[in-house]
Amino acid sequence: MDYFSRQKNTNIRLTLPVVCFVWQIAMIILFGVFIRYDEESDTHWVETKAHDNITSDIENDFYFRYPSFQDVHVMIFVGFGFLMTFLKRYSFGAVGFNFLIASFGLQWALLMQGWFHSLDPQTGKIFIGVESLINADFCVAGCLIAYGAVLGKVSPVQLLVMTLFGVTLFAVEEYIILNLLHARDAGGSMVIHTFGGYYGLAISRVLYRPNLHQSKRMQGSVYHSDTFAMIGTLFLWMFWPSFNSAITDHGDGQHRAVINTYLCLASTVLTTVAISSLSQKTGKLDMVHIQNSTLAGGVALGTAAEFMISPYGALIVGFFCGIISTMGYIFISPFLEKTLKIQDTCGIHNLHAMPGVIGGIVGAITAAAASESVYGKQGLINTFDFTGDFKDRTVLTQGGYQAAGMCVSIVFGVVGGAIVGSILKLPIWGDPADENCFDDEVYWEVREPESIPPILEYNNHMIHKQQDLSESNFSVEHCES
Amino acid sequence: MDYFSRQKNTNIRLTLPVVCFVWQIAMIILFGVFIRYDEESDTHWVETKAHDNITSDIENDFYFRYPSFQDVHVMIFVGFGFLMTFLKRYSFGAVGFNFLIASFGLQWALLMQGWFHSLDPQTGKIFIGVESLINADFCVAGCLIAYGAVLGKVSPVQLLVMTLFGVTLFAVEEYIILNLLHARDAGGSMVIHTFGGYYGLAISRVLYRPNLHQSKRMQGSVYHSDTFAMIGTLFLWMFWPSFNSAITDHGDGQHRAVINTYLCLASTVLTTVAISSLSQKTGKLDMVHIQNSTLAGGVALGTAAEFMISPYGALIVGFFCGIISTMGYIFISPFLEKTLKIQDTCGIHNLHAMPGVIGGIVGAITAAAASESVYGKQGLINTFDFTGDFKDRTVLTQGGYQAAGMCVSIVFGVVGGAIVGSILKLPIWGDPADENCFDDEVYWEVREPESIPPILEYNNHMIHKQQDLSESNFSVEHCES
Amino acid sequence: MDYFSRQKNTNIRLTLPVVCFVWQIAMIILFGVFIRYDEESDTHWVETKAHDNITSDIENDFYFRYPSFQDVHVMIFVGFGFLMTFLKRYSFGAVGFNFLIASFGLQWALLMQGWFHSLDPQTGKIFIGVESLINADFCVAGCLIAYGAVLGKVSPVQLLVMTLFGVTLFAVEEYIILNLLHARDAGGSMVIHTFGGYYGLAISRVLYRPNLHQSKRMQGSVYHSDTFAMIGTLFLWMFWPSFNSAITDHGDGQHRAVINTYLCLASTVLTTVAISSLSQKTGKLDMVHIQNSTLAGGVALGTAAEFMISPYGALIVGFFCGIISTMGYIFISPFLEKTLKIQDTCGIHNLHAMPGVIGGIVGAITAAAASESVYGKQGLINTFDFTGDFKDRTVLTQGGYQAAGMCVSIVFGVVGGAIVGSILKLPIWGDPADENCFDDEVYWEVREPESIPPILEYNNHMIHKQQDLSESNFSVEHCES
Repeated sequence: MDYFSRQKNTNIRLTLPVVCFVWQIAMIILFGVFIRYDEESDTHWVETKAHDNITSDIENDFYFRYPSFQDVHVMIFVGFGFLMTFLKRYSFGAVGFNFLIASFGLQWALLMQGWFHSLDPQTGKIFIGVESLINADFCVAGCLIAYGAVLGKVSPVQLLVMTLFGVTLFAVEEYIILNLLHARDAGGSMVIHTFGGYYGLAISRVLYRPNLHQSKRMQGSVYHSDTFAMIGTLFLWMFWPSFNSAITDHGDGQHRAVINTYLCLASTVLTTVAISSLSQKTGKLDMVHIQNSTLAGGVALGTAAEFMISPYGALIVGFFCGIISTMGYIFISPFLEKTLKIQDTCGIHNLHAMPGVIGGIVGAITAAAASESVYGKQGLINTFDFTGDFKDRTVLTQGGYQAAGMCVSIVFGVVGGAIVGSILKLPIWGDPADENCFDDEVYWEVREPESIPPILEYNNHMIHKQQDLSESNFSVEHCES
Repeated sequence: MDYFSRQKNTNIRLTLPVVCFVWQIAMIILFGVFIRYDEESDTHWVETKAHDNITSDIENDFYFRYPSFQDVHVMIFVGFGFLMTFLKRYSFGAVGFNFLIASFGLQWALLMQGWFHSLDPQTGKIFIGVESLINADFCVAGCLIAYGAVLGKVSPVQLLVMTLFGVTLFAVEEYIILNLLHARDAGGSMVIHTFGGYYGLAISRVLYRPNLHQSKRMQGSVYHSDTFAMIGTLFLWMFWPSFNSAITDHGDGQHRAVINTYLCLASTVLTTVAISSLSQKTGKLDMVHIQNSTLAGGVALGTAAEFMISPYGALIVGFFCGIISTMGYIFISPFLEKTLKIQDTCGIHNLHAMPGVIGGIVGAITAAAASESVYGKQGLINTFDFTGDFKDRTVLTQGGYQAAGMCVSIVFGVVGGAIVGSILKLPIWGDPADENCFDDEVYWEVREPESIPPILEYNNHMIHKQQDLSESNFSVEHCES
Repeated sequence: MDYFSRQKNTNIRLTLPVVCFVWQIAMIILFGVFIRYDEESDTHWVETKAHDNITSDIENDFYFRYPSFQDVHVMIFVGFGFLMTFLKRYSFGAVGFNFLIASFGLQWALLMQGWFHSLDPQTGKIFIGVESLINADFCVAGCLIAYGAVLGKVSPVQLLVMTLFGVTLFAVEEYIILNLLHARDAGGSMVIHTFGGYYGLAISRVLYRPNLHQSKRMQGSVYHSDTFAMIGTLFLWMFWPSFNSAITDHGDGQHRAVINTYLCLASTVLTTVAISSLSQKTGKLDMVHIQNSTLAGGVALGTAAEFMISPYGALIVGFFCGIISTMGYIFISPFLEKTLKIQDTCGIHNLHAMPGVIGGIVGAITAAAASESVYGKQGLINTFDFTGDFKDRTVLTQGGYQAAGMCVSIVFGVVGGAIVGSILKLPIWGDPADENCFDDEVYWEVREPESIPPILEYNNHMIHKQQDLSESNFSVEHCES
């Protein structure tokens, strides 16, 4: 292992435990000061029920949102985690670090989102329930997206720092977009995907490695790692309707968001396959596209899923997202790497940033085009929450604020990412040398030798040389020579 | 790749994108004309609620069915997809093409099922909600079952054509069985499994390849591909109670269907293991049986799950299905291949067709044996929907109609499959040559060489030759000789 | 295969099928005599509803518990099954035998738990609903935990015997703890994890194999088997909130249990990572710790999850559990093996037994410290079920009974395990010889040779010898020499 430390010190035996312990203790103290059960998860609920004339236990928000919460939870840990296992030798880092930063991030998100959105002015406490857990998972999603851009090139300590700042920035931009601008963004096209995408890309730009080709042997996938990645893809794809409907309005709001997302994603699959096939000489499909671009429709419907975009509208959004996202992998990613020096391991620009922007635009247009004839008078008020301070807002104004929200999320992503990237450039975080990127050996005890590529090379050679010999003989011949 | 094209042209660079684009555009247009949100997913629901005196948002059908829908969705994409990854070198095709045809099929199913079951005569529109999504997934399941019979032997274009016709036939037979005959089949023993099974087998018969042995090296599994397949098996097995209860009656109907299916499947596992162990010299188990036959109980309870079959009745059905399905893999599959020239890659005859027929028969008998003393007066009416035109039907008559439904599904499967098979025989669809079946290289960019079989051969040889040498030495010895 | 039978006869062609058939037939008969649908899953529910003035179908317990049930079901079959696939060559046994014994165990559990908890004195019947299914899955979990200790060292017949007795013992200790002592243990820290842990450890002690080192080559993991195991870890981790809340009180009870478990598990991840990193020279992480110790928090909150332990209290429990469990893998497991002769394949002492005991203690303390000011008068009664015979119990007494329950579960585990271990020692069960432990070849048809270790050895050698040659050349050089 000497050659690891020649240029870079990847020993994280001090920093990683210290960061984990200190931050976790800080969480405990802050939770002790601020976080309490909300009225639906407190034993006093029996009194609340009597007081509010709630006749049945099933009126608890838990029963409206828990199934969706669990689906979102699976997306965060299995979906994002396994989607990133496609690299031949970075599965532990993909799943394991995803697990670590999500576990820290959701605690910090409960605090940050609590302070900004639901701090009770009288008691100074944050009251949490199942919707808070969903929002915490959402917030974490933004940071996991950013992880996709730097996958294989950073240390777990850097990832934790990235998550600390990412969650902080997220809570602020979310507050501006949802509360101040009063934009709607239930599935987070802007708040989660656009922000997370540009945050990660900006960090990756600052951490640009001109000699990354030195670890070329570790880039790319092997057969089984691609199959593992499909587990991530499918759980994300299947549960995306839950993602986009998890915090929408009870009743028709959740129902409609599910239908729209379900349809949009189906449409995306077909156009992704079409473009992927077109891009190869004999029409072969590329797993990179199937793993990633098929999900773009879910991202792009994050804002509009709860609107009356209509079923065919959802299909149209998916249609174009599949095309654009796959084209992104073919044309834009190489351009970003060569010209803008953005090394984007998972292609989050194509899967999150671009579709997120599309989602923001679709949301703005759909909002501006909303009408009482389609939504009904009360339906319009409910959908866009035209109550309180915002009761006189028109749909056209709403469309403008949606577009403004879009810009806020881009600015927070780019500027925030640039600043955090500079912090991560300090030579104290234990990041790997260029030739050791994308290699689990650096941060994990791997019990077998770094074996896969040589085996294949060797075997490849044998196939090439011995083509004429029958299969059952060739190895004998070869070895007895 | 020259040798691929010697006999067959597997270039799908034109056909696949064209089919994807044209069909997806057709979907968008047809959805624009026909598909609308139903009243529970429309923003006008606030008015519907007031009108119908619905006091709580939780009365929305969404909350009755969404958790089951998500389970069914997982079965379709992860369950069916991963179950078929058992082949050593066809995991991409298994999961990827499953993904593609399900995504197209569910859109087409919403239209076809809508036209036949729920076209509103006044507006000419189809109103969709969560139950429509479940039904679309169900319809797709029929086509994915058929895919199992031809796995590895067809092109993605053929699969799309097969799905187009499959969904169409499905909607018609379903209309005849459920609406005209008024048979009950909530979990689709007849409508889904019997139809899908025979549809696939008939297609496979028409596409018979006498020289399939030329790709023998690609048949069979490797260690990890069998482990991947168990992911599919388990998600199907665990969520089958949701499958059989997803569209049954609210309340006791869904509750009972879950209990019955849960018990039936548990029983199936034990008898599958017993027969699998009996079939080998030293009692070893065969993964093929464990992966497939353990699911037969779920198939066979598709019709009767919602009836008062009683817990021990469910166990009995599972008991025999495990035996019959495993026997099928041991005795019937080789017979079908040799004598009837049906090459059934996944053994869908044993997992779907046969258990589906058993399910139909069990359903007919259980219906005919239903009594007011067991069901209660109102319970009997609710369970068999003896209302409207059918309010005077007796349970005995119902049993007869159930049996008739069974026959309809077989006929549709066999005849439909034969016709569609003939269409798929046209030499324009880009199917692989006999020696290239079961190989992802044909339709996928595979980044590593076709390596697994040679490595194993080679290694096998070494083990054989060098048995006496200690493990740590043998390779050294061998290579320095 | 001759060498298998030299010392031990692993032929299970007679015993396994006989046990499966006879026991399954026994289940059918006993179900026929005892098991019926409960009033919420019976067609007479329409009358019950009218009688009890239930206005909506959604008041059926099914809708309160089915989503949690499905999550628990996934934990049992995918969670436990895949967690144990970490061994390089025992994935079939891990997933497959887990599948078999869980399928038998849940049937037997419905009977045993029914007789002890819910036998109707008037009719002599056991009425089952969704909560019974959850409890059956819980009961099975205890046996699957015990499987972890003996993984790779026993035959499937032994596992079935272990499950038969395990479920029986479980039902008795559960009856004593929950009904007689009236302790609370919704997530089963004591009833499931402590009992299951000590049951397995005691069996493993009795079955001690002094020459287990003879199968050393099969111990340990390979890269992909570790990735498969992470599927198990994550599904257990994500769905643990459902596990701890599945049978708690409707409304705030389920809601609170979810929040507590969610937080506790997040905290555990950080301290597990910290200790794992500390334990290695350069701070590298160990997959064994990440796969297992991250789950300890869920175990330890099994009793207290439904109490008002408060969010920061949950974090504190998780904090210490991550530390203790990881330390266990580093220090206690080797000690147990060397000194106490307990060979614990999966380290269930660190993941279940120890955290289970911690959970029991946390539960006792939290119960003893409960106050009317925190819980509210009615809340206190609801949470601890101070009704009927127990309406005058104080929280302090309750704490004492909780601690007593803890002891009961340990005694049942240790004594029961010792007895059952002695039965399993009889030379009739077909267990493998020491040199064939941890090898799927013994009980499964494996289609490829026992290949992984030699390939790696060989390859390892090549890497070592040919370091100076460039990658693309070395194999050529080497082979042509």
